[in-house]
Amino acid sequence: VNSIGIVGSGIAGLHLALFLQQHSVPVTLYSDRTAEQIRASRLPSTVARFEHTRARERALGVDHWSALGHDVMWTRLYINGEPPLTFRGDVSQPWSFVDMRLYLATLLGDFEERGGEVIVGAVQASDVARLANEHDLVVVASGRASLTELFPRVPEHSPYTQPQRRLCAGYFHGIENPEPLGFYYTISPGQGEIFQAPFYSFEGRVSNLLFEAIPGQGLDVITQLRYQDDPRTFEATVLKLLREHVPIVYERVNPKEFGLTRPLDLLQGAITPTVRRGYLQLESGKFVVAIGDVHVLNDPLLGQGANAASHAAWVLGEAILNGSLYDELFCHGVEQRIWAYARPVTEWTNAALQPPPHVIEVFVAAAQNKAVADQLVDNFNAPQRNWEVFSSPERAASFLRQFGWNAPASTLQSSELRAA
Amino acid sequence: VNSIGIVGSGIAGLHLALFLQQHSVPVTLYSDRTAEQIRASRLPSTVARFEHTRARERALGVDHWSALGHDVMWTRLYINGEPPLTFRGDVSQPWSFVDMRLYLATLLGDFEERGGEVIVGAVQASDVARLANEHDLVVVASGRASLTELFPRVPEHSPYTQPQRRLCAGYFHGIENPEPLGFYYTISPGQGEIFQAPFYSFEGRVSNLLFEAIPGQGLDVITQLRYQDDPRTFEATVLKLLREHVPIVYERVNPKEFGLTRPLDLLQGAITPTVRRGYLQLESGKFVVAIGDVHVLNDPLLGQGANAASHAAWVLGEAILNGSLYDELFCHGVEQRIWAYARPVTEWTNAALQPPPHVIEVFVAAAQNKAVADQLVDNFNAPQRNWEVFSSPERAASFLRQFGWNAPASTLQSSELRAA
Repeated sequence: VNSIGIVGSGIAGLHLALFLQQHSVPVTLYSDRTAEQIRASRLPSTVARFEHTRARERALGVDHWSALGHDVMWTRLYINGEPPLTFRGDVSQPWSFVDMRLYLATLLGDFEERGGEVIVGAVQASDVARLANEHDLVVVASGRASLTELFPRVPEHSPYTQPQRRLCAGYFHGIENPEPLGFYYTISPGQGEIFQAPFYSFEGRVSNLLFEAIPGQGLDVITQLRYQDDPRTFEATVLKLLREHVPIVYERVNPKEFGLTRPLDLLQGAITPTVRRGYLQLESGKFVVAIGDVHVLNDPLLGQGANAASHAAWVLGEAILNGSLYDELFCHGVEQRIWAYARPVTEWTNAALQPPPHVIEVFVAAAQNKAVADQLVDNFNAPQRNWEVFSSPERAASFLRQFGWNAPASTLQSSELRAA
Repeated sequence: VNSIGIVGSGIAGLHLALFLQQHSVPVTLYSDRTAEQIRASRLPSTVARFEHTRARERALGVDHWSALGHDVMWTRLYINGEPPLTFRGDVSQPWSFVDMRLYLATLLGDFEERGGEVIVGAVQASDVARLANEHDLVVVASGRASLTELFPRVPEHSPYTQPQRRLCAGYFHGIENPEPLGFYYTISPGQGEIFQAPFYSFEGRVSNLLFEAIPGQGLDVITQLRYQDDPRTFEATVLKLLREHVPIVYERVNPKEFGLTRPLDLLQGAITPTVRRGYLQLESGKFVVAIGDVHVLNDPLLGQGANAASHAAWVLGEAILNGSLYDELFCHGVEQRIWAYARPVTEWTNAALQPPPHVIEVFVAAAQNKAVADQLVDNFNAPQRNWEVFSSPERAASFLRQFGWNAPASTLQSSELRAA
């Protein structure tokens, strides 16, 4: 019997577990929490799921949220400069924003209801060798610290050694959403980014605000304030930052209703973008594969992480269906195929943390040409295409020429971000 | 105008030139020789062309040799051990062996007749920067020493620092060929390999003998003898080696007719298997791409070089049709796609130069199971499949289990090559 052990019940672990279950491969899922504990936990992340991920959900029969009328049909970019720059891009295939506690708990329930074996308890790095003896292959799909450290960092693909943003994400009442639903992506030059998205959560529709603050700058105050010390001051600070940096969201706030939905619906933290090796060999000779954040951890700036993790689960799942032996040839092939997708995601994200001037020129063009705006936004579902657009001034100029925009690359290089 | 300059008129350069010409991309081919000079040159190599390469020839309209009735339908492996081991595998798609001087000169003529621009003259490394200014992209498809040195060796993929075989290849009269035509692949344990193949050359059908001699062993004498010093001694030595090492070929020799076809139909030399970077950036900022032997040079032991070079030309050609800018993103993507194919070729070839015991056990199975033999031989057209078979004892056992052969991996590890 070809048995797979999966450590971790995030999107990567669950998509892989459900995929293997669907194909009758024996699989055991090791989760550090029950579905009920996941529902009761602190906000873990704020994830946008794009069409390629949603297509996999349909294939797995876990497409529980498409019928809610909660799909997001467009994105508005707003650059809080002097003057401000803004454009709206419509997507050809809607995005979905669902509270990941709801999402993961529901998928874990699906897996169990279909007869899946779940073993609840924390797995540490020291447990992996034992699990490897019980399965033909162990997959690590959990970024718990001791598990992460099993896989060596790849310096060549990890340009940063500390966080480039400090994060504060929370769900709020009191922000009116236009119809159809849209996502607001604000860049405040020199300060960071602020995202506002309608999320489907335990109380129905709420508004997520995610602050991506450059450490030490003005936005960073909200990543350091403790909500529980003084909820009113915290919420007042959020409103002050919205007013200063995101007037187009602030104008939709109803101050009387505004407030964090629940104390647990808040997340503050920071990550260091890190690419690690995608597999390791144990002393026994057996191999262990890593997927998701434990393999490739990017800043959430471009919303690609959960989608890339789901993609990686699929690549590994298909390799398991096709393969017979979990040796270095297998692991290397899987790592290569996962990295072929994840590399442009990683390079685009790392570049966007310190955006070069030609990026702004593309945004200027998008503000004047709706087709450019639509393409840029739609490319979030095919991130390698946006990396092709943004990877150099020449690429940006080449992209814009397709839309009849003939600014030379030299112009793109001379544009600059200016703070408001 | 998007203009491509190709340096080198080997199979990689010509397949790329013909591909781009077919798709109306302006292309200039820099060849160190005219078609007539190529025809008049010394034997450059002895190439088997497998189906994937022949399919590209049909697509390019340069399939000039399929109608000759010269296709090779099977391969016989012969291990000159005690006792000898032999099996025959039939191919599902025939192989073609054509004198590369005829082949390359004809394709160069095709390119010119279709209006292609050819500039004849040697190109040195110092010329590349100038050519780069005249074209949007320069492709180096020639392994001339000074050009090769432009591209850094990749030690990680180049385990050898000196030749593992010394080579002697020649065309001979006086070896009878069975019908349908077949290829004889002999392994003489501890000595090296000897190949005999029917080639279509200037005089019609001739027999190629390729000696792959382990340096310093008995076979090596033929790589050191100078034909022009004493043709009779040279030919007598060839016969003596055939009699000792390849009795199943020797028995088809007619000694009265046996002899080298022409003094130019002989090649002696040695190569160090080397993988180099697939592109470089010039001081001007422009990029230059390498394809074929200048990028990946393998020992000819497994006959993959020309086929991999043609594959690389196709990958690059399609990328040129799809792409717009020849920047690092473009070059890196092309290098990755070429290496995805070339890596198993390289690893299989490098392993076959020092074959581990489990390889012999696979051959033992092939001698008893025709389906195994056919699959191994057919896999020369899909080399990654043979690397999957041979890369470890466990992989070999897994492959054989598909054919109902249940030797455990431990048995495979205990087999050994024994000299006759």
